[in-house]
This record gives sequence, structure tokens and C-alpha cells, in this order.
Amino acid sequence: MRKTIGFIGTGVMGASMAAHLIEAGYSLSVYNRTKEKADSLIKKGAVWRGTPGDAAAACGVIITIVGYPHDVESVYLGDGGIIERAEPGSLLIDMTTSSPALARKIYDAAKNRGLGALDSPVTGGDRGAREASLSIMVGGDEADFERALPILKVMGRNIVRFGDAGSGQTAKLANQIVIAGTMLGVCEGLAFASKMGLDRNELLGCITNGSAGSWSLASYGPRILKGDFAPGFFVKHFIKDMKLAKDASEEAGMSLEGLEAALCQYEKLASEGGENDGTQGLYKLYD
Amino acid sequence: MRKTIGFIGTGVMGASMAAHLIEAGYSLSVYNRTKEKADSLIKKGAVWRGTPGDAAAACGVIITIVGYPHDVESVYLGDGGIIERAEPGSLLIDMTTSSPALARKIYDAAKNRGLGALDSPVTGGDRGAREASLSIMVGGDEADFERALPILKVMGRNIVRFGDAGSGQTAKLANQIVIAGTMLGVCEGLAFASKMGLDRNELLGCITNGSAGSWSLASYGPRILKGDFAPGFFVKHFIKDMKLAKDASEEAGMSLEGLEAALCQYEKLASEGGENDGTQGLYKLYD
Repeated sequence: MRKTIGFIGTGVMGASMAAHLIEAGYSLSVYNRTKEKADSLIKKGAVWRGTPGDAAAACGVIITIVGYPHDVESVYLGDGGIIERAEPGSLLIDMTTSSPALARKIYDAAKNRGLGALDSPVTGGDRGAREASLSIMVGGDEADFERALPILKVMGRNIVRFGDAGSGQTAKLANQIVIAGTMLGVCEGLAFASKMGLDRNELLGCITNGSAGSWSLASYGPRILKGDFAPGFFVKHFIKDMKLAKDASEEAGMSLEGLEAALCQYEKLASEGGENDGTQGLYKLYD
Repeated sequence: MRKTIGFIGTGVMGASMAAHLIEAGYSLSVYNRTKEKADSLIKKGAVWRGTPGDAAAACGVIITIVGYPHDVESVYLGDGGIIERAEPGSLLIDMTTSSPALARKIYDAAKNRGLGALDSPVTGGDRGAREASLSIMVGGDEADFERALPILKVMGRNIVRFGDAGSGQTAKLANQIVIAGTMLGVCEGLAFASKMGLDRNELLGCITNGSAGSWSLASYGPRILKGDFAPGFFVKHFIKDMKLAKDASEEAGMSLEGLEAALCQYEKLASEGGENDGTQGLYKLYD
């Protein structure tokens, strides 16, 4: 097994995660749809590859963190993609938040070619990626998980295997459902305070450490008060996650009204031009 | 000014708060609708009074923390109530979560009789009351706030005056709006995890310190996993708070979809017999 890692997707999250791997001594081959976003990694010694398949063919471990499930499907299952090009024995780790069903499909296709596959989505945001403090939720075979663990530990702290292929994605969707409601509460509460003429800075100071407190309130509250709606986590990606969660919950016969309210509001925000805002942009819908 | 405090309402929150005042050296006169709930305070030296008015007549400072706005209205504005019986110069501090409009009505009635009045609702739950770590949101005159501060500091840590009468209640409603969304997210996310067969303990450990983290998740998540739905904070009281928030936001021309979804779900829970559960009981609606 070569000590090389192919890293596909060097966006806000991936660029930080890949940099930690280089610092930890791994030789990286990188690919990204927009090459410029890989430049900082190439300067640090990463080797550029012209396609995801090229990166896969050159490395024993392939990590992907791309945008949408259709991107995941394309890089893994497309013509000349990762599964076609990876050498038998390679380990594929998808860290995109994607669908549990697609994770199982990739797992099956990988097995058929003698490859290991893990779904390993992360939580902790851009800051967690920068600080290597991500939580990582893994689905797939135990042996593949053990093999991936030293690599995952370079990028995160809380690393749990939840079970078979797809279960990492399912855990991540549960996480996103929690965040959906929390963001609704944070944005609506602060917008109400603003509308009622309360001093929002005083309010934030008063409630952040009380029973209304959350990572979302502490992280996004101050940005909202400054009018900073730049993305840590894109609205368009959160909508994707909530749709996946809605699909999975409905398939399981559940009706999650908070999730639906959040999805509906975020779609409204996107339709009004906010899809490239950070998720704290929801505040603007109420203000 | 006598160093006595009349304390009306010795429930889950009030009993702990009153005990701190006794420990701090204040002489307490107490009243509660159910006398037994004041017994522990009477053992510590508090003097029982037969009506809220009797407690008010005997003390220069009167604190109330009762159930609903109609209870607040009754103890303050009813025949033989606090405003009728309190001696001129007394200070009235209502710590119930109630309506901003009622707070202003009490303030006006108090002024007419030469009394000071503050609305001073709290956040931090039963634990905050026990540990004297409540956040306290105050509305009313600056001078009355300064006079109340040494007393409020015995019960809480984060004490902010937001402005004129009613603004403490408005700030508390903003706090409750944040919590409403957060609780939806927590209960729906954990119920989804359960339905999908994930190990909920592993999930909770994995996500509590990540971007899904909140006071609600850390406090109620473990109770939910143990099937402990006993009240720290009653569903029926949370419904009351959310209705007040909905009324206030609608009067201001706002439509808060997350708040509405939460209120709707909690009312459904109450209609199914859960009104005396703790707010984490919302989980049962999905499980």
C-alpha cells in the first residue's frame, strides 16, 4: 500500500483537511473542479491530477469531499471515475454529506472491484476543518474503518463508526436535523429582538450562556449582529442536506415539522438570492 | 425600608430562588397557592402569609414567580392584591415569564400608588435556579433596577436591564423563541436517529460538542435517552411562553414559522396528555 492519498474536492472544508494531511506527512494527489482552489495545496507539495480517476489510479487511499450527491455519484461511478480507475485493495473514503442509499450503492460497486469504501461525513464547519477538530461519522466495514482511522484522526477528534455502509450518512443527517431547528430558533429569536427594539448585543450576551445557548448562537449570533452573512457553511449545501434528511425521514414514515419549516424557509431565502450566503443568512428573511 | 422580602410562588423555580435569599440573610414572607410547596422554606425561617396581599403589606420588596399571565394579573391587580396592599415606596419584582403588555399595565398601576415595578423574568431552568446562575432580563425604571440589583444578584449571574417596563418580558420571549427552534431540532434529530436504528448514545457523544451542540441537547439529550421525561420545565408553561411570543411577534407584523411549528407540536403533545411532562417530552411525539 502506497502512503499516498488522493484528495478530491478542495473547497472551504477540503482545503483545510487536505493541508492537515500534508502536514502529517502524507503525499497528496489532488483534484478539484476549479483548479485555483487547489493552488495553496500544490504549493505545499501536493501533485495535481487532471481527473478524479487519475488521482485514484495514483493512490492507495482516496478521499472525496465534493458538493452534491450527483457530484459524488459522478466522481465514483462515472466513466473513468474512481471505482473504475482505483487499484484493487484501495480504500475509498467519501466525506461529502450525501445520501445513505448512494453510500450503499458505492460500497457495493467498490466491493465488486475489490475496493473498500466508507461513508465518512463530517461536522464542525469551516472552523472544525481548520482546527482539525471535526466530528466524523463513519459507515462501512469495521476493517476498513480501522485502516482509515489514523488518517481520519489527522482531520478530526470525535470519530465514530455507526455501522454498515450508509450509517455514517444517516448519523450526519440526524446532526443536520438538530442544526435545522436550532438555526430557525437562533435567527427567529434574534430577528424578533431586533424588531422589538431590544439591544441585540445585550441580549446575545445575556442568553448565550443560558438555556437558549448553542454552538449556532455562539458562532453565528455575533456574525448576524455585525451583518456578516459570508459563508462558513453555504445555504445551498444546507438545503441539500435537509432535503436528504427529509427524504430519509419520510421513507421511514416520519413527519418532522421543524425540519420542514427550516427547509421551507431556507428555500425561500435561496429563491430570494441567498443561496451562496452562509446559513446565518436566514436572519435576513425575518429582518 | 424593611429588609424583608415577600416571595409569592414557591414552585420548582421559586423555592430554590427564595432559599438563596434566606441564605443571603433576607427575612422572607412567603405565599404559594399550594402551601406544602412552601414548607421547606418555612422550616428555614420564612414566615407564611395567607394571601399575596398579606405578604405585600408586610414587606418593602415583593417578588413574584407564578404560573400564567392571569395568575400574575390576579396577584397584582386583583381585589386585595399586591398593588392594593403594598405600602407606598415598595418595590414589586415580577419574575414570571408573562406578557410585555401586562408588565406595562402593572407598572402603570404601581406608579399610581407610589410603588416601583420591574418585570424580571429569568432563564436557566431548574438547575439555574438551584445554582443561582440564572440570567435575569429586566424592564422598568433605572432607579428601581439599581435598587433591585443586590437582590437579583443573589439569584442570578447575568442580569441586564433592557429598557422600560415590558422590555424584560420581550427579551425573555426572544430567548424562548430561540429555545423553541432548538428543542424542535434536538427532539426531531434524536427521534430520527432512533428510528433509523443508530446507536443514540454514540450519536449524542459525537454531536454534542460539534455544530449541532446546544444547552438543550446537552441537558435533555441524556434524559431523553434514559426515557426520563420528568419536568425541569413544564410543557404547559413552555406553551404559554410560545403563545406570548407568537402574539407579540404577530402584533409586530412578523411571521415566525419555526416558532409556529414548535408551538403546534407542543400543543399536540399536550393534547395527548403530555402537558405536565418536561419540554424534552416532545421527543415522544416522534418516537
